[in-house]
Amino acid sequence: MSEYEIGRARRSRRAYTFDEVSVVPSRRTRNATDVSLDWQIDAYRFDAPLMAAPTDSVVSPESAATLADLGVLAVLNIEGLWSRYSDAQPYLDEIVALPDEAATPRMQQIYAQPIDPDLVTDRIAKLRASGRIVAVAVSPSRAAEFGPLIAGATDLLVIRGTTVSAQHVAADGEPLNLRSFIGDLDVPVIVGGCANYQSALHLMRTGAAGVLVGFGGGAAHRTANVLGVRVPMATAVAEVAEARRDYLDESGGRYVHVLADGSMGRSGHMVRALACGADAVVVGSALARGTDSPGRGMHWGPEAVHPTLPRGQRVRLGTAGTLAEIVQGPSHTADGTMNLAGAIRKAVSTAGYTDLKEFQRVEVILGD
Amino acid sequence: MSEYEIGRARRSRRAYTFDEVSVVPSRRTRNATDVSLDWQIDAYRFDAPLMAAPTDSVVSPESAATLADLGVLAVLNIEGLWSRYSDAQPYLDEIVALPDEAATPRMQQIYAQPIDPDLVTDRIAKLRASGRIVAVAVSPSRAAEFGPLIAGATDLLVIRGTTVSAQHVAADGEPLNLRSFIGDLDVPVIVGGCANYQSALHLMRTGAAGVLVGFGGGAAHRTANVLGVRVPMATAVAEVAEARRDYLDESGGRYVHVLADGSMGRSGHMVRALACGADAVVVGSALARGTDSPGRGMHWGPEAVHPTLPRGQRVRLGTAGTLAEIVQGPSHTADGTMNLAGAIRKAVSTAGYTDLKEFQRVEVILGD
Amino acid sequence: MSEYEIGRARRSRRAYTFDEVSVVPSRRTRNATDVSLDWQIDAYRFDAPLMAAPTDSVVSPESAATLADLGVLAVLNIEGLWSRYSDAQPYLDEIVALPDEAATPRMQQIYAQPIDPDLVTDRIAKLRASGRIVAVAVSPSRAAEFGPLIAGATDLLVIRGTTVSAQHVAADGEPLNLRSFIGDLDVPVIVGGCANYQSALHLMRTGAAGVLVGFGGGAAHRTANVLGVRVPMATAVAEVAEARRDYLDESGGRYVHVLADGSMGRSGHMVRALACGADAVVVGSALARGTDSPGRGMHWGPEAVHPTLPRGQRVRLGTAGTLAEIVQGPSHTADGTMNLAGAIRKAVSTAGYTDLKEFQRVEVILGD
Amino acid sequence: MSEYEIGRARRSRRAYTFDEVSVVPSRRTRNATDVSLDWQIDAYRFDAPLMAAPTDSVVSPESAATLADLGVLAVLNIEGLWSRYSDAQPYLDEIVALPDEAATPRMQQIYAQPIDPDLVTDRIAKLRASGRIVAVAVSPSRAAEFGPLIAGATDLLVIRGTTVSAQHVAADGEPLNLRSFIGDLDVPVIVGGCANYQSALHLMRTGAAGVLVGFGGGAAHRTANVLGVRVPMATAVAEVAEARRDYLDESGGRYVHVLADGSMGRSGHMVRALACGADAVVVGSALARGTDSPGRGMHWGPEAVHPTLPRGQRVRLGTAGTLAEIVQGPSHTADGTMNLAGAIRKAVSTAGYTDLKEFQRVEVILGD
Repeated sequence: MSEYEIGRARRSRRAYTFDEVSVVPSRRTRNATDVSLDWQIDAYRFDAPLMAAPTDSVVSPESAATLADLGVLAVLNIEGLWSRYSDAQPYLDEIVALPDEAATPRMQQIYAQPIDPDLVTDRIAKLRASGRIVAVAVSPSRAAEFGPLIAGATDLLVIRGTTVSAQHVAADGEPLNLRSFIGDLDVPVIVGGCANYQSALHLMRTGAAGVLVGFGGGAAHRTANVLGVRVPMATAVAEVAEARRDYLDESGGRYVHVLADGSMGRSGHMVRALACGADAVVVGSALARGTDSPGRGMHWGPEAVHPTLPRGQRVRLGTAGTLAEIVQGPSHTADGTMNLAGAIRKAVSTAGYTDLKEFQRVEVILGD
Repeated sequence: MSEYEIGRARRSRRAYTFDEVSVVPSRRTRNATDVSLDWQIDAYRFDAPLMAAPTDSVVSPESAATLADLGVLAVLNIEGLWSRYSDAQPYLDEIVALPDEAATPRMQQIYAQPIDPDLVTDRIAKLRASGRIVAVAVSPSRAAEFGPLIAGATDLLVIRGTTVSAQHVAADGEPLNLRSFIGDLDVPVIVGGCANYQSALHLMRTGAAGVLVGFGGGAAHRTANVLGVRVPMATAVAEVAEARRDYLDESGGRYVHVLADGSMGRSGHMVRALACGADAVVVGSALARGTDSPGRGMHWGPEAVHPTLPRGQRVRLGTAGTLAEIVQGPSHTADGTMNLAGAIRKAVSTAGYTDLKEFQRVEVILGD
Repeated sequence: MSEYEIGRARRSRRAYTFDEVSVVPSRRTRNATDVSLDWQIDAYRFDAPLMAAPTDSVVSPESAATLADLGVLAVLNIEGLWSRYSDAQPYLDEIVALPDEAATPRMQQIYAQPIDPDLVTDRIAKLRASGRIVAVAVSPSRAAEFGPLIAGATDLLVIRGTTVSAQHVAADGEPLNLRSFIGDLDVPVIVGGCANYQSALHLMRTGAAGVLVGFGGGAAHRTANVLGVRVPMATAVAEVAEARRDYLDESGGRYVHVLADGSMGRSGHMVRALACGADAVVVGSALARGTDSPGRGMHWGPEAVHPTLPRGQRVRLGTAGTLAEIVQGPSHTADGTMNLAGAIRKAVSTAGYTDLKEFQRVEVILGD
Repeated sequence: MSEYEIGRARRSRRAYTFDEVSVVPSRRTRNATDVSLDWQIDAYRFDAPLMAAPTDSVVSPESAATLADLGVLAVLNIEGLWSRYSDAQPYLDEIVALPDEAATPRMQQIYAQPIDPDLVTDRIAKLRASGRIVAVAVSPSRAAEFGPLIAGATDLLVIRGTTVSAQHVAADGEPLNLRSFIGDLDVPVIVGGCANYQSALHLMRTGAAGVLVGFGGGAAHRTANVLGVRVPMATAVAEVAEARRDYLDESGGRYVHVLADGSMGRSGHMVRALACGADAVVVGSALARGTDSPGRGMHWGPEAVHPTLPRGQRVRLGTAGTLAEIVQGPSHTADGTMNLAGAIRKAVSTAGYTDLKEFQRVEVILGD
């Protein structure tokens, strides 16, 4: 990658955001109706390359069903309100209604309630009973603890944190050994975030079915402000897509899915993530805009409720339409917040492709 | 073109907008009165290198006459209100008066009214009867359908869509074969949008008299938000101008006109488009600012009324003056919205040239 | 200069603004009191490297005296209100009081009043009678007309237009031949604007004592919007400074002064202009902020009153202090609008230099 | 360093701000509890790599004690209010309550009160009596004057000005000879600001224990506006870190500490400063946000009260929490203004390191 000198003896690469890259149509166009947006990971097939972010503003037991029926991979966070309170709805209602300045301290209190393993088991069982694909998320620090509860009861497991590394080192106690943890489970695992070639390649070697690119949120996370950590996403996705290719060769044919996770508030950003090499995208804020989503226009991620160092906050987005309109249309706005699947389909056809894998080869250009 | 690395194994070019390039006067200056802005395409000559965008906020049967008398190529969209309603004015009035948040859904309803072929024939006949040059626009998807109605009745035909390719592929049914379609018509055809060298070269090979560079709108289109597709226009125009030169050689002398279409809200942008190689520019928002334009300060393009995935919206620009003042002056403002022809003339003379073809060689510089 | 590709076969240089360059102190510092800001052009010496912009918001017969006493080269525009009206003050008062939206049309009317040659002669005579250095400005198009009136009566003549070239070509009539015009005059001439090496070199060859770099205004001109012409000033000044060096050699020792003209609203910008190679800077908006300036917080340039194509407008800046406080201090604000001379003196001393010519060698760095 | 052409024969380097660089986690992560933030300079050890800026809005005799107990190096400015008034509190209260537009002129008056050497002695004696580390700051121009008062009574001395050079030249009188001044003192000296390799190397050769990188302030200084002087801090820190390495070799093992000083309003910026090579960071505005800081949400630096050329101003930041919450948490916001030590600790662990010296090797990336 091109290097620039920050100072004497200190060189750095330049990375790019989704706002800086654009898709350039080639000389052929196609009908949108000829495009397939099918996405399959392990044995599970989805109508759209969209994963609903595992956060309380997006996925509740109820919205999980709605989203699954719309062709989205809906992932319930088992460290969210639904695992802390038998009746979570009043707390959700309270959070949505909080004035901005009071939101973080009160959310820290609400989420201080311990997780109840019985509730975890119960929520998963109910999802299972609905007959839909069951997918849940856990943080890396609690993956070992909740593994036994989860194993066998879910179809897909997501291990999602700000940064997840294949090699976590702890001075005391035993850190999570991702490779053996994943090897011991029966379910396919999607794990992340990661942000560059090396860290992604190591995650792929743990046996993961998919890796999350990014640091776990977009509109609602403020990792750059707090930690100084940031990953311009177009570069991160392109880097990890290259790790996928190299690992495919190294492993003799294991195709690890790359999911872009963060900085994609508009359908145009999602299209660019796919163009840069993502197999699917994780959608948070766009789905929190659903009138029938748990957040109803408010959005927050797990990092917003950290007891001593929150790296996100509840953000006020407003509503755009129903989840069905947001995912499948029709759209009544030109801001990229509705008909996400239709927009991706139209972009792929305009560029002259018929499926998402081909679309990863589309030309992208830098510029404003 | 210079390449940058987005990520390992993913390289990209950098493209530039009209805001990033400026014209640099050379060491000679001329009198503005010595400059000719004449522009001729096929047998048709215009006093200024301006085409009025074929959209209902700019070109109505009435404003078409006004604009033609000002030396502008005025193009009526035959898929607009005037082909859907025998009395379109009340709908135009309603759209102009809609509150912002209600505009898109209501416009989707209004434009859901089917096109009436008799009205199309009638509108064209009336334009013809006025004795002025008759130019109409059609979308690529309906070009085959409306071809018979149009052929012979118009002087110039514009086929305009977000992206038009010479090679449209459809799984079912027969896609529009541009080359044979254009070959079968008797009228010169201007076709687009396109955005790079390859797609433009292929459009030129279809026999088009002119190509539109850009994706069909500026102030009023939101293609980047929705589709992730964007074309920094200075680069796009320079690329297509190079395709014009190569095709001129390849074809043994066919000069295909290059029309910049989009991102030119101010006369300074139009000057830069001409400096980058455009033969003429398509003007939308600047003309929608006319007190006697159909939009009267409101502007929208055909992409704003798509039933399921609008990529534009009605924008509130305010009025600047009469169409005559906007095109020919005098101007009473320094924001580049009035006396478009005078501004272009002054820029050309300041840079020391006397006509538009020479002006395509002027030095441009990058910077803020 | 580094080249970038705008498009195939279209290359361009990158130019920089004063906002993009900064002065970097070197390893030595000095006392501010040891710095001399003296500037001398031809036989005339000034305490500060500042020329007051020849525009009605800055230089009136009265403020010219105030500014001269503060060590500034004050230049009266002989095409301004004072040459159109025997009692200009009511018109000045009216302009200052106009509401924003009405300003341009009314100013076009007020300046439509013809120039009265007797008033020109009278104003110059009064300036002369005050015993201060007499400097007046004329536009290139009227220089030949007013030459006889001016010659002999002034100490310095400024010919200032948006773009002035050594080689103006006119199809009919005789264009101004700058070289013979300047050769025939007895007074030293400062001429511009120009913006690059070639045009500056040609202006230097006309015999000018100084050249103006830029297009004649900053806060108050909108040339980029209207004409698409723009000159990132740091690059323009550096280019013209190099022309000065080459012309010095070519001419066997004629040192032509380089005056930066435009985009310098704050003292920090003026420092950067001097660091990039300017011998002095033209100050408009900063002086229009004087409570005792004609503009009293309103600023406009000659380009704002063009009858058919204004390229500037009256801008509302607010007042900062008296002209004495603005030029020599003391300052009571940190926004770079007061104590311009003190700020330049402090910058030069901080960088370790004692005069302005040495300061042209200071290191500058790119960045935000 | 990469060079760019500003104009013919004028080349410049490109420098980067903390907003343009980000920390990139590598493939290993650690527990935050395993990270040590210890910082030691000379014989003095601190729990966090934070120095409180020596300005009246941050360090008073009272807050100095609070900050020291939180593990911060607290430095009292002996040219501040506490050395000018025996009862400084009413003046502090007045400054905090001033309306914005009146702040600078009134502060110029308040700080016009002469420094009372007896008060200086008294303040230092009281700090000493509290049993904590005693650190005071003086400006370069008064260092010689106050040296005798300070020597022996303080543990650490900070000489801090906008630009401090090892070689100050004065036409009359004797400039401060830093090398002999520092050599004659018994206390370790931290000196600055400086902004590039050469000036830092020369400061290191004076015998300083630490150098300040930057021009003495962030949110509250406006040096760029007024003087045109600016230093993109990421580059400045990287440059000075390289000077530290070269001086370590040249001196046979003297490790001079590098303290980033300015442009770090958020913990993320502090992390980036450490990543670029700083050993510690100077915190001003973040601490002025303390409900128990002297500024109580208002912040100003010594440069804001200059009698004739202020280069800073009092800025209104609002409060974030107690000084204890700001330094050690818990945080209730995601804007990087609380739990500074916790944020740094988390960033270091996320990147897989256990101490600050190792963290200077972390990968940084350019981008938005």
